[in-house]
Amino acid sequence: MAGSTAADAGAGSGAGAGAGAEAGTDDTADADEPVREPEGNIYLTQLRERLASLHAADIAYVLEALPPDERRLVWDSVKREVDGAVLLEVSEPVREALIDSMTEAELVAAVKDLDADDVADLAEHLPPAVVEKVQHELTPEEREQLRTAMSYPDDSVGARMDFEFVRVREDVTLEVVLRYLRRFDELPQHTDQVFVVDRNGILMGSLSIEQVLINEPDTEVSAVMHRDVLSLDADDEVGEAAQAFERYDLISAPVVDPHHKLIGRLTIDEVVDVIREESDADALNQAGLRDEEDLFGSVWQSARNRWLWLAVNLVTAFLASRVIGIFDGTIEKVVALATLMPIVAGLAGNSGNQTMALMIRSLAQGQITGSNFGRLLRKELTVALLNGVVWGLVAGCATWALYHDSKAATLLGVAMAVAILLNLLIGALLGVIVPFALDRLGRDPALGSSVLLTFSTDGLGFMIFLGLATMLF
Amino acid sequence: MAGSTAADAGAGSGAGAGAGAEAGTDDTADADEPVREPEGNIYLTQLRERLASLHAADIAYVLEALPPDERRLVWDSVKREVDGAVLLEVSEPVREALIDSMTEAELVAAVKDLDADDVADLAEHLPPAVVEKVQHELTPEEREQLRTAMSYPDDSVGARMDFEFVRVREDVTLEVVLRYLRRFDELPQHTDQVFVVDRNGILMGSLSIEQVLINEPDTEVSAVMHRDVLSLDADDEVGEAAQAFERYDLISAPVVDPHHKLIGRLTIDEVVDVIREESDADALNQAGLRDEEDLFGSVWQSARNRWLWLAVNLVTAFLASRVIGIFDGTIEKVVALATLMPIVAGLAGNSGNQTMALMIRSLAQGQITGSNFGRLLRKELTVALLNGVVWGLVAGCATWALYHDSKAATLLGVAMAVAILLNLLIGALLGVIVPFALDRLGRDPALGSSVLLTFSTDGLGFMIFLGLATMLF
Repeated sequence: MAGSTAADAGAGSGAGAGAGAEAGTDDTADADEPVREPEGNIYLTQLRERLASLHAADIAYVLEALPPDERRLVWDSVKREVDGAVLLEVSEPVREALIDSMTEAELVAAVKDLDADDVADLAEHLPPAVVEKVQHELTPEEREQLRTAMSYPDDSVGARMDFEFVRVREDVTLEVVLRYLRRFDELPQHTDQVFVVDRNGILMGSLSIEQVLINEPDTEVSAVMHRDVLSLDADDEVGEAAQAFERYDLISAPVVDPHHKLIGRLTIDEVVDVIREESDADALNQAGLRDEEDLFGSVWQSARNRWLWLAVNLVTAFLASRVIGIFDGTIEKVVALATLMPIVAGLAGNSGNQTMALMIRSLAQGQITGSNFGRLLRKELTVALLNGVVWGLVAGCATWALYHDSKAATLLGVAMAVAILLNLLIGALLGVIVPFALDRLGRDPALGSSVLLTFSTDGLGFMIFLGLATMLF
Repeated sequence: MAGSTAADAGAGSGAGAGAGAEAGTDDTADADEPVREPEGNIYLTQLRERLASLHAADIAYVLEALPPDERRLVWDSVKREVDGAVLLEVSEPVREALIDSMTEAELVAAVKDLDADDVADLAEHLPPAVVEKVQHELTPEEREQLRTAMSYPDDSVGARMDFEFVRVREDVTLEVVLRYLRRFDELPQHTDQVFVVDRNGILMGSLSIEQVLINEPDTEVSAVMHRDVLSLDADDEVGEAAQAFERYDLISAPVVDPHHKLIGRLTIDEVVDVIREESDADALNQAGLRDEEDLFGSVWQSARNRWLWLAVNLVTAFLASRVIGIFDGTIEKVVALATLMPIVAGLAGNSGNQTMALMIRSLAQGQITGSNFGRLLRKELTVALLNGVVWGLVAGCATWALYHDSKAATLLGVAMAVAILLNLLIGALLGVIVPFALDRLGRDPALGSSVLLTFSTDGLGFMIFLGLATMLF
């Protein structure tokens, strides 16, 4: 709600010269506005006031939903102190657009006060000169953290961890811990546990805040700490770490280097982002989009984002259509075949997609192993057999009914029923095997499976149906 | 990993009489096993030991990945005390299978020690007699909580909240709060804040644990509490609450009744489950599956789960194919049209799906409003126009090249190019409008959009391409 209101305010004053009339009509609506001159400034002041009261995440939300002109106006009205926080919250395409609109000095000012892990998140989108200037403004410790964070690949725990955490020794009492905590102005966000380390910084365990609170102050840390704490490796895949968070309901987890030295912390807010990003990416990839898109980005960029899979689709569609070309002669004889063949192809594609959606999800959850794969394949084939008999018969009867005037009606119905049965089996086979194979090859099973499946069910569907018809007629 | 190991142990002893030989071959592999008799018991003991060391969520994970026979064996070997916790962790279809395999007495024993909100989650799957017996075992307060939790619809905050939270008054000092907390044996899970209420239980604000820790003990609660805390209404949609958690990085939030009385608490672990369930449901619905499926459930159930959308698909495919039937005469003259028409339909379906995936995601994030809808539609149509010109020309030239021996080659190429351009525009139009309309009608935009889109791009694609050809030839 806050989003659309602020957006409207932006639209009122932001559309520039051409929109003077629009602004005028808006004005008549709220005629109790006392001062009119200068018009733009009143709106801008109101806009600034509204934005100042918003959380950075809400400003990001407003920016995402705005077309470029209004977006720039709102962005210029955001207080400089929150620029960095907003840049962290917006999606990648919008982030790039905003960064492009800023000067080097503005960027340095926006970024330099962020935590090192946040700077690292932005760094790849920033001009190198800005990154260099920001590095100069950091303390040596922060600079080292920035270097560390930037050294890990995007999908690793190391790239997502932060460096803010509280460390204690195991031989002190909770009283000491409490006094230590009172010296903080604020605790690192999501501090549900403090980490117990030895003098070399090696992780020994964790002390939950709960234990600090419910035990008597004279208790020793060593008496109430958890020694078998789940720790993550900075090189671990962040998607797997997210599964651990989900499964064990974690709020934070320590990140260690190969020597088990505590170097950072992964928190639930990053994990929620990872889960959201992964499911968004899956949905977009399955639909054949390469990247996330700025809703109001340039037409040119949007078009290009869709080209890869449109091109793949065009090639596979031409290949599948070649199959039809083989049976030109049969189609000339019985033109009804041309009418019916898309049904055979479409139904198997749909059924195979159902199987594939289940497979992709189960693979993501790690539920499919070499040992249960065979059983799963048998089950899916049995389901396809059952569905093939049922829907093959239905389609066969419908075909017979549609063409009952023609003397080919019975043969058409039979060809339809048999082709649907066989093609549903093919759809199930590929629906199970394609994602499994992609996964085994270390690729994302969602990416491209659908195009490959449709290609196969189309091509083989045409082949089976028209081939059968050629034999029968 | 733990999953597959335990699963293997189950498979070794669980397959019953028919699998004696298999168990034998396994044995030769680990011949250093000292005692052999009785074989089954050794495996069972090992299995029980392994299971006893696992977290309930890990046991659930193992159960999900097992076929029915092995699943039952593992389930029977799980210690009774964790039965309830495991039932809460497994997916719905597996939960139903497990509950079916248990006696009433076992179910009552498994459920009666759970928190009221967890009992409520299970209640809809339990036999009424069990629910009644469990209710008798509850305290009056718990019984009231159970009644409350069960009174809210599945997708509301009320159905997902828990009743475990800590309340304090605003006129006490932090010292008092600390002493109060020390009286707990354990704090409610994910206690990052305690709630400040007045004597009538009305929510006045929240006191973060951070403030308890960093301030001096003689500070008054009223001095450091947050008064403008984000509170949820029990009737709120839980998906919207999840967005608030994501946006503001919350760990917990208070739930209030219409009189602003504190009645419960929503925590991040439930929110993560909600996010996961929503994205899973979207993926399955888009693929045309009604419900989540037990990976190794009965073939009959799986087949029926897929029938609704297969039936819809069959009907729409027959309808689209009727369009082809109209142009029988043209196809008889130029049989190449039958070969080429699936390309026109397929490419527009693919392109429309790209648009639709973006729309569905943006609708889910609430970024599309009545005011920016027109602009978005224009943008998508422009992208489709650009893509239609580019890929229409490519496909037209490819068609000309394929049929350059025929004298119809040029006309075929032109029909192809124009039909692709027009059909891509239709795909974009529907890709934007269908999800938006479904959303405005209060329906899930993901559900069925894809079938409707494919139906339209198929039917209209055939119509345009064959209609053009009829005019040209």
